[in-house]
Amino acid sequence: MVNPFFKNIGPFKVTEILNLLNLDTNQANSDKIINDIKDLSNSNENDITFFHSKKYKSIANNTKALFCITTENLKNDLPNSCTPIVVENVLIATSKVTTKFYPNSIDDNFDITAKDIIETNFKDKVKFGKNVLIGDNVSIGSNCKIGHNSIIERNVSIGNNSSIGSNSIIRNTLIGNNVKILDNCVIGKHGFGFFPDKKNNIRYPHIGMVIIEDYCEIGCGSTIDRGSMSNTIIGKNTYLDNQIHVAHNVKIGENCIIAGQVGIAGSTILGKNIKIGGQAGISGHLKIGDNVDIAGGSGVIRDIPDNSKVMGYPAKNIRNFLKENK
Amino acid sequence: MVNPFFKNIGPFKVTEILNLLNLDTNQANSDKIINDIKDLSNSNENDITFFHSKKYKSIANNTKALFCITTENLKNDLPNSCTPIVVENVLIATSKVTTKFYPNSIDDNFDITAKDIIETNFKDKVKFGKNVLIGDNVSIGSNCKIGHNSIIERNVSIGNNSSIGSNSIIRNTLIGNNVKILDNCVIGKHGFGFFPDKKNNIRYPHIGMVIIEDYCEIGCGSTIDRGSMSNTIIGKNTYLDNQIHVAHNVKIGENCIIAGQVGIAGSTILGKNIKIGGQAGISGHLKIGDNVDIAGGSGVIRDIPDNSKVMGYPAKNIRNFLKENK
Amino acid sequence: MVNPFFKNIGPFKVTEILNLLNLDTNQANSDKIINDIKDLSNSNENDITFFHSKKYKSIANNTKALFCITTENLKNDLPNSCTPIVVENVLIATSKVTTKFYPNSIDDNFDITAKDIIETNFKDKVKFGKNVLIGDNVSIGSNCKIGHNSIIERNVSIGNNSSIGSNSIIRNTLIGNNVKILDNCVIGKHGFGFFPDKKNNIRYPHIGMVIIEDYCEIGCGSTIDRGSMSNTIIGKNTYLDNQIHVAHNVKIGENCIIAGQVGIAGSTILGKNIKIGGQAGISGHLKIGDNVDIAGGSGVIRDIPDNSKVMGYPAKNIRNFLKENK
Repeated sequence: MVNPFFKNIGPFKVTEILNLLNLDTNQANSDKIINDIKDLSNSNENDITFFHSKKYKSIANNTKALFCITTENLKNDLPNSCTPIVVENVLIATSKVTTKFYPNSIDDNFDITAKDIIETNFKDKVKFGKNVLIGDNVSIGSNCKIGHNSIIERNVSIGNNSSIGSNSIIRNTLIGNNVKILDNCVIGKHGFGFFPDKKNNIRYPHIGMVIIEDYCEIGCGSTIDRGSMSNTIIGKNTYLDNQIHVAHNVKIGENCIIAGQVGIAGSTILGKNIKIGGQAGISGHLKIGDNVDIAGGSGVIRDIPDNSKVMGYPAKNIRNFLKENK
Repeated sequence: MVNPFFKNIGPFKVTEILNLLNLDTNQANSDKIINDIKDLSNSNENDITFFHSKKYKSIANNTKALFCITTENLKNDLPNSCTPIVVENVLIATSKVTTKFYPNSIDDNFDITAKDIIETNFKDKVKFGKNVLIGDNVSIGSNCKIGHNSIIERNVSIGNNSSIGSNSIIRNTLIGNNVKILDNCVIGKHGFGFFPDKKNNIRYPHIGMVIIEDYCEIGCGSTIDRGSMSNTIIGKNTYLDNQIHVAHNVKIGENCIIAGQVGIAGSTILGKNIKIGGQAGISGHLKIGDNVDIAGGSGVIRDIPDNSKVMGYPAKNIRNFLKENK
Repeated sequence: MVNPFFKNIGPFKVTEILNLLNLDTNQANSDKIINDIKDLSNSNENDITFFHSKKYKSIANNTKALFCITTENLKNDLPNSCTPIVVENVLIATSKVTTKFYPNSIDDNFDITAKDIIETNFKDKVKFGKNVLIGDNVSIGSNCKIGHNSIIERNVSIGNNSSIGSNSIIRNTLIGNNVKILDNCVIGKHGFGFFPDKKNNIRYPHIGMVIIEDYCEIGCGSTIDRGSMSNTIIGKNTYLDNQIHVAHNVKIGENCIIAGQVGIAGSTILGKNIKIGGQAGISGHLKIGDNVDIAGGSGVIRDIPDNSKVMGYPAKNIRNFLKENK
């Protein structure tokens, strides 16, 4: 899916990019124009890409990108058609360049463009409470409700028959049909992703969004962060209880039931028909299979295969856990 | 206590009920009128009830109800005065019928009737902040305060000398005297109760309320869900810290002290003088005795007798836990 | 640092203090005037202090205070210049006297003085959303942003280039430069500190504040309570993720990274460069050294020395934990 929300403000001359990275502008032909930043496999002929680990060597070898942010050690794995831009820290440099193309993806200040729904065309279409604000680039289907003091910030699409509670804040989010988002939620803010720096941590851009599919329910006080490069997804007919935190890039399958105060760390992928008990936590970058049951209070730190029932910290087979913990 | 909040919109003819359940309307005398839905023991002669498990056999045998939603296997345990209505899933059918009698108990959309306190008679009686909203059927005692942006939705009674913070949302709740509810709370929304269904989960009605007794304090960002058939109760002089979640039907005794981020799952009953450390979790449908201490971070998955001190996950005697975990 | 926020409304005659404590007013010279209440070592010649434990015996012996709230057993350790005021419970009496001098430190009701930013001089200086409220004694530097519905209650100082999200509530807080506070936070309310009492718990005063140093980020839905006698501090360039709870008197060093749903109990001191994984909890009154890594989901109940990596509940050396929990 093409990201509908973050606008690429390029193209830029390569010299602008080199200046941004405090590099010698003589190391590349200054007339060249760069359209976009993409990953190694998706880059086109006028794009810049990045290459930071040997495990992507074969992809790097076939990239179509014109320039590639990389290291002294890796630069020889690029094709001749791609000019290396050598830096010390590829990810920080990539972050800076992405920010240049997508400046709105890093600034998560409040949406100053939001205005009272009464001043918009939505006033005749939506049932709304007091003090509801709507930002730019918002679409809302038929038969929707938005509660008091809720703020639909820029870049939100809401389907039909969906309702938003009171005091909730949403941005950069696609909401399907028949979705219920309850009170005091914050959905679509950037994730907790940055490069630590002793003086001043450097935030990297979050150009992804949150996708909440049809028939979902999101409980009170929950937070769902948008993705950095990919999207955060809540699958169809999945229900979240109160005070849940879903971090950036997490993908949850359909028909899941997630109880109160659960936390799911960044980039973890969950299958469908999963049940998670209250206060369980799931580490980042894991894969949880279909039909998995995770007992309340568990701490999951490894991948879980399909059809498993787990409990404990670290979470293990529930029968073994209960046998060992009478 | 008679529920003061949810209005029974019956009576209905039994044929209307049979139609709702997609049943043959010839299986019962179509002229009969049903006043209400109640449980087996509380039903009166013109009520409908439900019977879904053999353990209620002796109560079923004495029900006064005119009709009973039940299964083929159980129907013969009803008295002759009670006509069985045979369905596949008793709880789902009961949910549908309850929803028919109490339609407002299932819809937790924002309260569109709420209006600015300045337009109500409370403006001369209550100390209030900016943008305070008050719904229908609200009563407020003397010397109360309501902070900025708070929404007292329909069906709330507040005693004397109580204060509500800012950005809090309350509905279907009885609040006693000298109670403090701090900021960003959501109190009285329906619990996380529904019948899973692959296409579209079916919510069951929550006709209970939240009762917060005198001298309680509820910390910032807490959520307390109202009961489904019974009520959620916070006993006298019990203090909750910030970011606590109390699920539907939970009953907490008096003089309890509950630290931050604790979660208590549905229908658990806690005694009095209980102390619970931060982030502890308590599973649903448990009974926790009086004078119990639960250490921070514990996960309680079994009943706890009076005067116990427990720790760990699963929580056990604190001395044993600490001996085993040096 | 002199507390800039809580105003001492003294002095009081000693008879007023004795009356407050229901003591015989003949036990002290009724003409004496008391300026302030301070701890044993900081009291000056016209102050009242308190002495409740033998471990402070040598400090008590040298106090300059004119009066001292203490017990029958301890009173003989005071110098002749200091008149003992003998009570049954020193801490409760001290709480009452502190409340007399600093009455605003105990009342955390909403700030009724807050008014719409449009009616203040900040309207030309700050970028602000709809419905922003500003209380008394607030200062805001240049180039700051305050989101929709946020309430900057009394006693807040914000530096330059800082931004507050929407729906956040702040009081009694010093915020540095380049700080970001995201949405739905509550910062600067009193902590969860009180004396249990069967009829009606007695809150003790919180005369401290919250200090958030330069370059910090505070995630959505977080709560940070102000200190009781000392301050709650978030060190420079420390980042907090969503739904974190920081209790009163906690001090966090610089360059820490704290993931979602972490809770830190009262009076714990954390060093610098600490990383804490999601949902970890840290008990109160602990000391966590510099460069410590605490794995997600851990429960820390003991001090942790510098440069340690810990995991588990109770948290221990991470290698040992993982070896024992395969």
